[in-house]
Amino acid sequence: MFAGCCALRLRMRILGALRGGARLKDAQQRSFSSAQVSQKDCSLPNNCWNQDLKRLFEQFMKKCEDGSWERIPSYKPQQDQDYKTHLLDAKKIKEEQMSLARLFTRSLEDGLGFEYVMFYTEAEKRTVCLFQGGPFLQGGPGFLHGGAIATMIDGTVGTAALIFGGIVMTANLNINYKKPIPLLSTVIINSQVDKIEGRKVYVSCTVQSADEKTLYTEATSLFIKLDLDKSLQ
Amino acid sequence: MFAGCCALRLRMRILGALRGGARLKDAQQRSFSSAQVSQKDCSLPNNCWNQDLKRLFEQFMKKCEDGSWERIPSYKPQQDQDYKTHLLDAKKIKEEQMSLARLFTRSLEDGLGFEYVMFYTEAEKRTVCLFQGGPFLQGGPGFLHGGAIATMIDGTVGTAALIFGGIVMTANLNINYKKPIPLLSTVIINSQVDKIEGRKVYVSCTVQSADEKTLYTEATSLFIKLDLDKSLQ
Repeated sequence: MFAGCCALRLRMRILGALRGGARLKDAQQRSFSSAQVSQKDCSLPNNCWNQDLKRLFEQFMKKCEDGSWERIPSYKPQQDQDYKTHLLDAKKIKEEQMSLARLFTRSLEDGLGFEYVMFYTEAEKRTVCLFQGGPFLQGGPGFLHGGAIATMIDGTVGTAALIFGGIVMTANLNINYKKPIPLLSTVIINSQVDKIEGRKVYVSCTVQSADEKTLYTEATSLFIKLDLDKSLQ
Repeated sequence: MFAGCCALRLRMRILGALRGGARLKDAQQRSFSSAQVSQKDCSLPNNCWNQDLKRLFEQFMKKCEDGSWERIPSYKPQQDQDYKTHLLDAKKIKEEQMSLARLFTRSLEDGLGFEYVMFYTEAEKRTVCLFQGGPFLQGGPGFLHGGAIATMIDGTVGTAALIFGGIVMTANLNINYKKPIPLLSTVIINSQVDKIEGRKVYVSCTVQSADEKTLYTEATSLFIKLDLDKSLQ
């Protein structure tokens, strides 16, 4: 159990590094630098979360009390966003752009883009994402862009593959869009590791309304485990 | 030919309405309101475009000279972005959020997110997107997020389905990720309408490096034509 716990912590640290934001829970952060600790945990409620998102968050936090589920914190860097588009030197522009690199799903201001929190349970090999899509994620008028849903699906199944399979890369994402998702509504992305065969990790998921009465989207995915020793050579 | 041209113009107008930004070329804008005309066309070069994107843009603009290809303009609203996250009234927050609704792929500042331009050719039923992913679209360190690629793929195959098939909704998106795409590099998304069967429109695409030597991603998609008369009832 201890070994499993340590392995999980290691995987979560790598998850944090890979995803540019996710970190272990507060008590486990002491070994991180003070700069990282001062970052804002975006997977906690803010004023822009709607009632459904807050209610579901509380429900899952209750499930965490006995340790069967865990919340995955997710940090956004408080970087200087004063981006100078007037510069004419191509090299300087590229350097400046790269210095601003940040996780896609945490790149927008509170309430405008991806508002979400993820939880996982080891016993069931499941990861759940509670997600509210903001006004900057619009596709057709009043609805979420298909790419924004794909992004949160990739994030959720990817987190499941990483926690339960190890360091992975997305190889395939197959998404069936059944109904459009209204902008600013809350959805539940429920992902499940279906099987692990050698280096292949198969994860599926559903995207449902907050009351679980509407199935918006279904997806399957395949991840390939990376051999870090080989990758670093 | 004239009828075909008119039908295409109609489809492009609907494309604009559906996608929250795309409009017909300048000469065709005269019938739009002055507010729309004053919007910025984001599919023209800016200081943040890298050399590859500028070079490919010029190549495709040359192809447009004989009318065999057309560039698709894409507009970003110059809305007030002063979003007040400190408000505590949930209803006011929701109203304010909805008033900021904008097309996902045009919601970030120049150079930070999706820099792209699309072209299409009627003769070959193809749509090409030249795309440079900015620093706010990061997945793994230094690479584009899988969801950001999925978003641009959805946008490109969706545009092809709309131009050549009519008003459509994404039903399936099946993406094979072969190699990670470096952040700030330019890629060419080349899409092709494979067949149209009744209400089903099948479109496939590839995502390649600017020199066309590296195949990063492949995808197939299915779109369903909407019956607008039924939808409006």
